[in-house]
Amino acid sequence: MNNYKSSVDCIDDCFERLRALDRERMHISRAAALLQWDEECCLPSDGVEERAEQRAVLEGLAHEKLIAAEIGQLLDKLSGELPLNGALQNASGEFPIADFLRVLRRDYDKAVKIPADFVRECAKAESLSQAAWVTARKQKDFAAFAPHLEKMIGFAKQKAELWGWEKTHLYDGLLDFFEPSLGVKEITAVFDPLREHLQQFLKKIAAKPKPDDSFLHYNYEIPKQEAFCREILTGLGYNNKRGRLDISTHPFTTTLGSSDVRITTRYALSDPLSGLFSVIHESGHAFYELGIGSALRYSSLAEGTSMGIHESQSRLWENVIGRSRAFWKPWFPRFKEHFPAEIGGTDFECFYRAVNTVVPGPIRVEADEVSYSLHIILRFELEQMLFSEVLTVNELPKVWNAKMKDYLDVECADDAEGVLQDVHWSMGAFGYFPSYALGNLYGLQFWDKLKEDIVDVDGLLERQDYGMIHSWLRDNIHRKGRSVDPAVLIKEVTGRSLSTESFFRYIEQKYTEIYGL
Amino acid sequence: MNNYKSSVDCIDDCFERLRALDRERMHISRAAALLQWDEECCLPSDGVEERAEQRAVLEGLAHEKLIAAEIGQLLDKLSGELPLNGALQNASGEFPIADFLRVLRRDYDKAVKIPADFVRECAKAESLSQAAWVTARKQKDFAAFAPHLEKMIGFAKQKAELWGWEKTHLYDGLLDFFEPSLGVKEITAVFDPLREHLQQFLKKIAAKPKPDDSFLHYNYEIPKQEAFCREILTGLGYNNKRGRLDISTHPFTTTLGSSDVRITTRYALSDPLSGLFSVIHESGHAFYELGIGSALRYSSLAEGTSMGIHESQSRLWENVIGRSRAFWKPWFPRFKEHFPAEIGGTDFECFYRAVNTVVPGPIRVEADEVSYSLHIILRFELEQMLFSEVLTVNELPKVWNAKMKDYLDVECADDAEGVLQDVHWSMGAFGYFPSYALGNLYGLQFWDKLKEDIVDVDGLLERQDYGMIHSWLRDNIHRKGRSVDPAVLIKEVTGRSLSTESFFRYIEQKYTEIYGL
Repeated sequence: MNNYKSSVDCIDDCFERLRALDRERMHISRAAALLQWDEECCLPSDGVEERAEQRAVLEGLAHEKLIAAEIGQLLDKLSGELPLNGALQNASGEFPIADFLRVLRRDYDKAVKIPADFVRECAKAESLSQAAWVTARKQKDFAAFAPHLEKMIGFAKQKAELWGWEKTHLYDGLLDFFEPSLGVKEITAVFDPLREHLQQFLKKIAAKPKPDDSFLHYNYEIPKQEAFCREILTGLGYNNKRGRLDISTHPFTTTLGSSDVRITTRYALSDPLSGLFSVIHESGHAFYELGIGSALRYSSLAEGTSMGIHESQSRLWENVIGRSRAFWKPWFPRFKEHFPAEIGGTDFECFYRAVNTVVPGPIRVEADEVSYSLHIILRFELEQMLFSEVLTVNELPKVWNAKMKDYLDVECADDAEGVLQDVHWSMGAFGYFPSYALGNLYGLQFWDKLKEDIVDVDGLLERQDYGMIHSWLRDNIHRKGRSVDPAVLIKEVTGRSLSTESFFRYIEQKYTEIYGL
Repeated sequence: MNNYKSSVDCIDDCFERLRALDRERMHISRAAALLQWDEECCLPSDGVEERAEQRAVLEGLAHEKLIAAEIGQLLDKLSGELPLNGALQNASGEFPIADFLRVLRRDYDKAVKIPADFVRECAKAESLSQAAWVTARKQKDFAAFAPHLEKMIGFAKQKAELWGWEKTHLYDGLLDFFEPSLGVKEITAVFDPLREHLQQFLKKIAAKPKPDDSFLHYNYEIPKQEAFCREILTGLGYNNKRGRLDISTHPFTTTLGSSDVRITTRYALSDPLSGLFSVIHESGHAFYELGIGSALRYSSLAEGTSMGIHESQSRLWENVIGRSRAFWKPWFPRFKEHFPAEIGGTDFECFYRAVNTVVPGPIRVEADEVSYSLHIILRFELEQMLFSEVLTVNELPKVWNAKMKDYLDVECADDAEGVLQDVHWSMGAFGYFPSYALGNLYGLQFWDKLKEDIVDVDGLLERQDYGMIHSWLRDNIHRKGRSVDPAVLIKEVTGRSLSTESFFRYIEQKYTEIYGL
């Protein structure tokens, strides 16, 4: 009896110790995130250089804490106890111990494989590469960036090699980092039909006249834009006691604590929707992070489970909800009250169509929801080609432009609005892009299920009553944090694996109606 | 030859390693400072609890890094090389190696004496104590706070014991932490005459009619106050590329990087001078930190040398410059332009007198520059009595009130405006108060020397030309950072040890004229 008890005690102690180490590391990571948030939103310009060093120190510390030998030992010891004995399970209440050990083991295994020297070397090269990219983009000079891109690809390959790639492609190793359990094969299986479908659909839309959105191009005073954004944000249920809205060059969401999830946007004088839809998009990310179950707090599980699932939430709020007719029924009158002169005699239908204008262009971040995924698929295909060495860096612009013409019927005027437009590759973030399009698919699949479970969602939106939608998303997705992997989650929630079906139906229905196809 | 070289190399390596460790720790400390700045200026209210934990983690890490065994070993090794051989000295350019080793040794020796458990226990008790103080002050209930104060004094005594106190009093150990090399004896030597002098002087002023400052008590719209503060701040030479001004409950200055020194203020609707003089006061702190020599950057030397010297800079700008006739000559017309209706027909002399009204009151932070030091001396005397155990916590309010009556002829209505007014004791910061009054003395002693070196300072102020004043302060004080201790600094700069002489002369001249004594 005594022996049994002391063994349980020991396991309890190990578990508590692991939780404490994990909690300490999360606090360091969040402090590092604050350094970054502050850099984007507050930092005086001359402080930038030193801030980079501060961030490197804190990120280095967080990494050190993750790969500490003690973490490995505790994981070994505790994983020997799986399936868990009841005493430990009960002691931790709602906390999903087995998932915690699995996820932390995965993070630890990945992290220990990367030598500290390699991390430092990468970080240095990334800084140089990003600076070179900024200049190259400004000067529309891909050749000046090419050697850095070459180097970034080299590092990414090394990283994938170090991690070890279980599937067919080296590139799988990178994809898996952002979207656990999805590789080239799984993604291609949905992206191929998606590409064909959207290409055909875009052609049909292109044959139709473009909706009139001229009223959106007057000057909309920025303080007024901000006031309207804050009204919508509050209306959506974003709680200022648990976050804040600021301005930055690129909109983003960051988690600085379980009750401190901040969003940012930017405002354009003659494009009132740009800032607004950024706010709604980021609020979707924020609702996800704020909805993570309190039992998971301060642990490695207290984050979104993948980039793709994260994008599903942000793009759901931005597009599926935020660009819907039902959503704007009550908000359009408010918009008119904020901007009576600017909007003039524009009626609701005209506004609704303008909010959903489909015009393919060269820039991903400005793309409508029909053409958006094609920008992503293009990048996914190019990344694959780069990593399987069927494409060299020097050939990249030519192939980029050819695919743009092919998929979107868009001519890039130069590399700045072509291959140089995104920051991701300059930072070595390969395998990240697919998440954006996966988010569209996950999002609509969740949405279809939500509409099965909640009667008359449109009625709720028309009454600005978002409570049930929040509850559904929280119960089915948010509260679980990282305790459930994306592939398991989508099946658990919708009963099916990831598919394009819901997204196709949504796009077809919505835009057939808008464009009278 | 070879042997000699390798020994030099080794010493060089040790030195570089020590610099790198020190630099890393400074970055962590500054990240911790950002957590605090953000808490005061930005943090959503529900994030407070978690933020406390994040701060504890980072402050703990900074402490760990300081007391790392490697630091001690490197200090031992390098101090054996003092006086420094030329090779090392040349290699480091302007960097004052011997001072660095001396100061880091002092920090290290103090820090290693405090066990980590004790630090944690203190931190926890401090949180509880501060919370109890907030409530007790609100409810004007000293008895509710007394047990916490008892505990805080206990911890402070233990800390002083752990540090070891070389001088006569246990309290010396605490004073030395904030003001190296000054103890009860040295401080009493200046505070005793200061008290007597100010008491007598206040009596003379009290016999005279109070200047008319009724125009200062209208409503001054806060955005207009802020605009005027920003104008003065820029006029004084505070560079927004190296800092920023925000709003917080209590004004403060914080260094988040060598080019990121931020200040805060608060605005009161019917007291336009409160926010303004806080801005000027904090800018004085900021000029000090921003003026630290670039050779000292990222090192333990890159801070103000003591709290007292810091206060000398802030109080110099706030009072000696900021409340002078010459300063307001060009700024008064600007003030009138910002607030034409509020100021009405008030003329310059009336304004100048109102800015320098002397009316002793119960609250330290609202005190004029004549009575201010008496608030400090009272606290200094009470701290001594508490630490030498001639006074118990329970007797504190009675003695406080008696001294207030004696020194300032002020009756405290209750303990909220008496012994409970300051946050310091609730945080265990004993020995800190004297710095404020020492700052007044240091400041005027510097100022007298500055006026010897710079011809026609009043002329400069009248022309809003602060460049030479900044240069003088930077060359003589700021650039040295912590490389020179306060007692050495005051002698080095002014040729004399700390004395009350300059301050007495300043107060007498200024207020004799204003009050027609």
